[in-house]
Amino acid sequence: MITVEDALTQILKEIRPLGLESVTLANSLCRTLGEDIRAARPNPPWDNSAMDGYALRAGDATGAAKDSAVTLDVIYDLPAGSTPKGPVNKGQAVRIMTGAPVPPGADAVVMVELTASLTEGKVDIRGSVRPGDNIRKAGEDFKAGDIVLKKGAYVRPAEIAMLATVGVSYLFVHKRPRVAVLSTGDELVEIGQTPAPGKISNSNGHALAALVAESGAVPVQLGIARDTKESLKEKLSIARSCDCIISSGGVSVGDYDFVKDVLKELGSQMIFWKVSMKPGKPLAFGVIGGVPAFGLPGNPISSMVAFEQFVRPSLLKMSGRGPICRAELNATLTKDVKIKPGRTNFLRGLLTLNDGGASVAPLEGQGSGVISTMVAANCYIIVGMDSTGYAKGAVVKVQPFDPSVFLKVRA
Amino acid sequence: MITVEDALTQILKEIRPLGLESVTLANSLCRTLGEDIRAARPNPPWDNSAMDGYALRAGDATGAAKDSAVTLDVIYDLPAGSTPKGPVNKGQAVRIMTGAPVPPGADAVVMVELTASLTEGKVDIRGSVRPGDNIRKAGEDFKAGDIVLKKGAYVRPAEIAMLATVGVSYLFVHKRPRVAVLSTGDELVEIGQTPAPGKISNSNGHALAALVAESGAVPVQLGIARDTKESLKEKLSIARSCDCIISSGGVSVGDYDFVKDVLKELGSQMIFWKVSMKPGKPLAFGVIGGVPAFGLPGNPISSMVAFEQFVRPSLLKMSGRGPICRAELNATLTKDVKIKPGRTNFLRGLLTLNDGGASVAPLEGQGSGVISTMVAANCYIIVGMDSTGYAKGAVVKVQPFDPSVFLKVRA
Repeated sequence: MITVEDALTQILKEIRPLGLESVTLANSLCRTLGEDIRAARPNPPWDNSAMDGYALRAGDATGAAKDSAVTLDVIYDLPAGSTPKGPVNKGQAVRIMTGAPVPPGADAVVMVELTASLTEGKVDIRGSVRPGDNIRKAGEDFKAGDIVLKKGAYVRPAEIAMLATVGVSYLFVHKRPRVAVLSTGDELVEIGQTPAPGKISNSNGHALAALVAESGAVPVQLGIARDTKESLKEKLSIARSCDCIISSGGVSVGDYDFVKDVLKELGSQMIFWKVSMKPGKPLAFGVIGGVPAFGLPGNPISSMVAFEQFVRPSLLKMSGRGPICRAELNATLTKDVKIKPGRTNFLRGLLTLNDGGASVAPLEGQGSGVISTMVAANCYIIVGMDSTGYAKGAVVKVQPFDPSVFLKVRA
Repeated sequence: MITVEDALTQILKEIRPLGLESVTLANSLCRTLGEDIRAARPNPPWDNSAMDGYALRAGDATGAAKDSAVTLDVIYDLPAGSTPKGPVNKGQAVRIMTGAPVPPGADAVVMVELTASLTEGKVDIRGSVRPGDNIRKAGEDFKAGDIVLKKGAYVRPAEIAMLATVGVSYLFVHKRPRVAVLSTGDELVEIGQTPAPGKISNSNGHALAALVAESGAVPVQLGIARDTKESLKEKLSIARSCDCIISSGGVSVGDYDFVKDVLKELGSQMIFWKVSMKPGKPLAFGVIGGVPAFGLPGNPISSMVAFEQFVRPSLLKMSGRGPICRAELNATLTKDVKIKPGRTNFLRGLLTLNDGGASVAPLEGQGSGVISTMVAANCYIIVGMDSTGYAKGAVVKVQPFDPSVFLKVRA
């Protein structure tokens, strides 16, 4: 059996980033930059005031204090958005608002709270001022010509702030993968229908579509393929118009011959593996007419675990983000864990970040059909292939899959 | 000056969860449940096979082994999706696929890999079998009538799996807050226009809209209000049709009188604060015609920090998720940090999760207009009000705001 690591390496070799498309600034959130972004102008564009106050020559107010104020002539007002009307000479000041350009001659701004304006046209400076005080220097953020964002950057609100600052209205980003999601099996009925005896709801199709969406890709739901060559062939023919195909079910020993036949008829080949992991052992991966295709196991938890380990990194690579996996964190086990060695185990756990670090509780009910445990979980506890488990208090690797780990409810 | 903690407490007092709306299963991802979800049927619905193999009476195969196989009569095939044709009696077996109901009489399943089918209608069992082997018990996930998801639960892919399993096609979730986003200031021009001297791009409007969207709410972009009573009044009149209002700029000392006048004319009152934090000190909060309104500072980083501390928890509360803040994590400083005491400081940092725990690098360029530092950051380092800073190696509180902290690029 191939290891999780080797399976992922082989899969990622087949995955290429998708091409680019142009989107508006607002639509670039959570996308990946397809181009370097260069600044045409510096930021700040000019030396500007960090405070509401008075621009002056620092030398005029050396030693000024509450009980020994220095009085200067206020020559004009400089609201934000306007430009200086002239230089500040010795003994003069300009009333300036935050962000306004520092007028020529001035080399400092004193904040309004340290001044008093008792006489029309005059201001008392009541605090000492040093050159450079409360001035933001032109270009302290970036200079004209700087690359401010690099191709491949993931666009968060901070990147939106940067794009807006340099005045980008439209930009190239990597296309989002369109992912065909297909469930196979005569036992499945669509949700909304009451399952007849022996039948169950098609939960995998919906859960996998949600995982696709959560990965920033676009699910294309193809519904249920029946256990006939015709049905599977029809669905796969449609699926080939997408950037990636995910099916669930149809990869256990008894099903495989039949799937293999259909793939041969479609002129494609599937690499079929058993991956040394639990849950998620039976995994098919191949390329159908140029489109990477994942045959995930039919058990709900098995398909979700296999998605996380193999499909998600592939979709992120297609999206231009690179071969990106979930990080692994250290956490202290709150309970013993016993495992049959031989495969990498992914146990559903509940990770808690606390003052002393991170702790993780392995959850009861690790069967590959037990969805309530998945609902209770926020991470996988990874138990290595040769391990028989760990004792309470041991430090283990966890793979958090739920950003809510970073949230806390306020008392 | 009010503390960050007290300001948030006062704000959250004014915030109520929004009402409910019905959405399809697929559209419920990243929403908050507005109702308890109860299961009509148990899961699994019946005892079923966890493997492809043969259902039998365990007693018939006690002691079976590779070199002392037990031969049983195969009375029928039981593919997934079908129902048993009759009971399994002594000496009999049923060929069964994963997920199919265990036929009456059988009390175990032996996996196909431990069998051989040499003669038509017969199977050799080549491994020992115990009662219960490879059988998933009816209801081991949940029972009929169980509440499987609680009102207030956040819908992730796992919840989608659960909803689909219990057959929910439509459900009630909390409405997403519609948030008016408004920038104020004569110095602003819309992106796409080249700023004239003294002017800058409206970056805050776009960055705040992105933060709103990232919080799961819906930004309603109102553009730029000019520094006139008429302009501000017009924009605020439109904004009042939303569930929340965010403006940036117009809350420094020099601006405030003018904003206050407009609010009075609109029959509303604004609580104006200086919050003891850096950046983000000037913050206005109030209720305009029943709608919570945040007046954030005009500096780009100040407005983003204030959004994180005050607006985001408010939007999550409105969305039904409760008063939820960013969690605080311990991390080891990689460099000295020096701070002027008196205010809670939020420094942009780069958090790295590693084998030994978490470490955080404070970034160069902490000015409230330096966007490149925000782009480089993935967390805030929180420095308490009375602290003058920390030495390299100290353990500090960080507030990660970027789920990418949980990702790693594969070598």
